[in-house]
Amino acid sequence: MNNELLIKMTTDSWRKQIAATNKIFDNLSDEELQHEVAPGRNRGIYLLGHLTAVHDLMLPLLRFEEAKYPELKPVFLDAPDKAVEAIPSAPELRQQWKEVNEALLNHIQDLPAEDWFARHANISKEDFIKEPHRNRLNVLLDRTIHLSNHRGQLLLLQNKRE
Amino acid sequence: MNNELLIKMTTDSWRKQIAATNKIFDNLSDEELQHEVAPGRNRGIYLLGHLTAVHDLMLPLLRFEEAKYPELKPVFLDAPDKAVEAIPSAPELRQQWKEVNEALLNHIQDLPAEDWFARHANISKEDFIKEPHRNRLNVLLDRTIHLSNHRGQLLLLQNKRE
Repeated sequence: MNNELLIKMTTDSWRKQIAATNKIFDNLSDEELQHEVAPGRNRGIYLLGHLTAVHDLMLPLLRFEEAKYPELKPVFLDAPDKAVEAIPSAPELRQQWKEVNEALLNHIQDLPAEDWFARHANISKEDFIKEPHRNRLNVLLDRTIHLSNHRGQLLLLQNKRE
Repeated sequence: MNNELLIKMTTDSWRKQIAATNKIFDNLSDEELQHEVAPGRNRGIYLLGHLTAVHDLMLPLLRFEEAKYPELKPVFLDAPDKAVEAIPSAPELRQQWKEVNEALLNHIQDLPAEDWFARHANISKEDFIKEPHRNRLNVLLDRTIHLSNHRGQLLLLQNKRE
């Protein structure tokens, strides 16, 4: 029984962070996304691209399906903000963000309880025997924490409206 | 077996976030803690007090022991930054932060696996029967995410040293 409880706790946390982050993005105009979260720091649009790239790569990491937008990785994961001049537009990134999270959520909902404790794609079968905590549920937990980290920064873009 | 795995995953995440946050605080001088994370936003010292207050209250919430510094709550939890004029000094807060996290960590290490799935202090026995995910492990998960959220903001205080 605890297995299912823990899957519920972890997937609920993920959903909650996604919903809270969507609320921020929805409240920000495309123009506001161009602002830096603090002087000299990442722009909102870079964080939107970064989070989309990271979540997109969760699709293969969780062994769900291929990444949908692998072209985001060099721009928003390998390079820092402002290093690449031509980046996708805010409306384009908003659409990709939505699509990637919807795909993830569908897989998350469909995954049978025991499969959460299977290895993720970045660990070999041999290592997984020694480190069974490096499973799919742990990836979701780690990415929930990553999302929260950047959500705290995105909150700073909201013109003190909350 | 999955119980222990999941407890390990969650407590490891907690430890990792605490270590990463300590690294930021250790890198910031008392003077730098007086800066706002972004113009018009919370100061570093407020976030230090806020996190200490929240973690201190985890002691009774997890049914470990009484809060050590309940006087932090009105200043750093109930009131926004700059609303209360006289707040503890940075060295004082650093000490309390350390102490509270050490107490928590000792309890966390000692708690037997099954006890993580017991209710936390803010839910009645009756409600817990209907909502068994509102257990102690879920409190730790939630507070790990909360810590990450503010850690992302504290990172902005580091004068681009990382």
